[in-house]
Amino acid sequence: MSDDWAIALHGGAGTILKETMTPEREAAYRQGLEAALAAGRAVLEAGGAAEDAVEASVIALEDDPLFNAGRGAVLTADGGFELDSAIMRGHDLAVGAVFSVCDVANPIRLARLVMDYSPHVAFCGEGASRFARAGGLPAVPPAYFETAHRRQQLEKARAANVISLDHNDNKFGTVGAVARDARGNLAAATSTGGMTNKAVGRIGDSPVIGAGTYASNASCAVSATGHGELFIRLTVARDIAAMMEYGGLSLIEASRRKVLVELATLEAESGGIIAVGRTGDPVLVFNSAGMYRAAQSAGGEPVIAIYRDGD
Amino acid sequence: MSDDWAIALHGGAGTILKETMTPEREAAYRQGLEAALAAGRAVLEAGGAAEDAVEASVIALEDDPLFNAGRGAVLTADGGFELDSAIMRGHDLAVGAVFSVCDVANPIRLARLVMDYSPHVAFCGEGASRFARAGGLPAVPPAYFETAHRRQQLEKARAANVISLDHNDNKFGTVGAVARDARGNLAAATSTGGMTNKAVGRIGDSPVIGAGTYASNASCAVSATGHGELFIRLTVARDIAAMMEYGGLSLIEASRRKVLVELATLEAESGGIIAVGRTGDPVLVFNSAGMYRAAQSAGGEPVIAIYRDGD
Repeated sequence: MSDDWAIALHGGAGTILKETMTPEREAAYRQGLEAALAAGRAVLEAGGAAEDAVEASVIALEDDPLFNAGRGAVLTADGGFELDSAIMRGHDLAVGAVFSVCDVANPIRLARLVMDYSPHVAFCGEGASRFARAGGLPAVPPAYFETAHRRQQLEKARAANVISLDHNDNKFGTVGAVARDARGNLAAATSTGGMTNKAVGRIGDSPVIGAGTYASNASCAVSATGHGELFIRLTVARDIAAMMEYGGLSLIEASRRKVLVELATLEAESGGIIAVGRTGDPVLVFNSAGMYRAAQSAGGEPVIAIYRDGD
Repeated sequence: MSDDWAIALHGGAGTILKETMTPEREAAYRQGLEAALAAGRAVLEAGGAAEDAVEASVIALEDDPLFNAGRGAVLTADGGFELDSAIMRGHDLAVGAVFSVCDVANPIRLARLVMDYSPHVAFCGEGASRFARAGGLPAVPPAYFETAHRRQQLEKARAANVISLDHNDNKFGTVGAVARDARGNLAAATSTGGMTNKAVGRIGDSPVIGAGTYASNASCAVSATGHGELFIRLTVARDIAAMMEYGGLSLIEASRRKVLVELATLEAESGGIIAVGRTGDPVLVFNSAGMYRAAQSAGGEPVIAIYRDGD
């Protein structure tokens, strides 16, 4: 039907357990997810495009210091910030991706600029910064991104000499959104600060089209969160779409096979995905103890959840 | 059978026409392709691994200034060099990829180091250079890569204000190799200097797993060359494998559908791929006037070709 929009978003997955969460923090996460959902929903309810909705939701999550993207991103081994982001539009397979950007408050805005205005589809590092300036996105200093909590995480990770997905810290990951608009077009967007204490220059799956981000009107839109290296090796986002396009699987069948079987075989708690197809409600599948997530379909109520049991 | 190895390689695709080629240049290209084929073949004939064979062939092509990878790479809009490379192994889906590296003579060696020794699978820019130093790959100055011909190409592209794939210059692209070893394992490797006069930081398909490079023993190994932005949007390399795994297509059917139908619909002369499956001869498919290419299977003769008619 013509107003059959749907949207889903995630704020990271991992060993998120109710027993290690305070009521105050849980409330703050739920509030952040609800605000990000509302931002995308407002676009869709007004008849806006899927790519505008996912961008609006991801901007809200980037701006919220609780989530590992934009402000509140984790620190690299050098104590700096390297942000990755990508957006893809399903009706024409348009793409914008940025790798290892250090000075843009909202990397998803930059990915969108690349999609809309560049003959190229992906930029990294200094070249991405230049494109941001040319497109009117101001430079922000590292202090813009930094929070005391993320600095402490780095100090702990350095002391333990680990590259951390913050599995034991109840938050890690990446943020992302997928949407179907009232015209039936799909889009996906993902943004991340990567892994705490990651080696400088490390690229994860978020900006890799077909790994952490993918959208095609022929099948579905997908945004992933988790142990990015595995998502690259298993081309997770495109494979869910390809199982639908070439194998005739449903969205939920394809998502479960990729996340609960293939990813979980390589690493038990490796992450999850959100996805939306041409019809039906969004699909949210993860193999970890929890995933910060939210979803809503036209005519339905918003769903906000954190833990595995759907709570 | 146990000694059923096969290998294929490419040195770029595009509007390569016999009437604009001199006999001397054509002979030089054929010699370069034959030498690179011999390097990979030697590994396979000795019972070596597919990933060692594709690395050996790509190193030979990177070292040959005729091809746009390593020495002889094209220049960016800033007059610099930014090299991308990736390698993938089919039996365990191991990956190494480097984006926008400026100081490593053989970027495929660095991608291999990442695959073999890093918990991460992809690095860009300065972080990639640091990993190279830690792994014993010395820094080379820009002068190492530069050739008079590539400098002239940049001057011409700047004067015309175009980002050039060198379509009218009979050489562009990327180099790559795919192989099946005597144990039946597959691997793919790709390396490139990108596009002449490209914006600084532009990322093409070569280092993007699933776009320009992919390998899985479940289906095939693929290396692509051409207009990289389209190969990213169409997730070309993984899709050929996915059509086999989920759709039951043969390697040649999947390759033709992706290159001759889907890619050609977006842009008539957009490039090509080389691929090898678990059985049979390599497959080489392109929609452009030519593709520098070579292939050989155990017990067969080497095939070296440039133009569409198989010559």
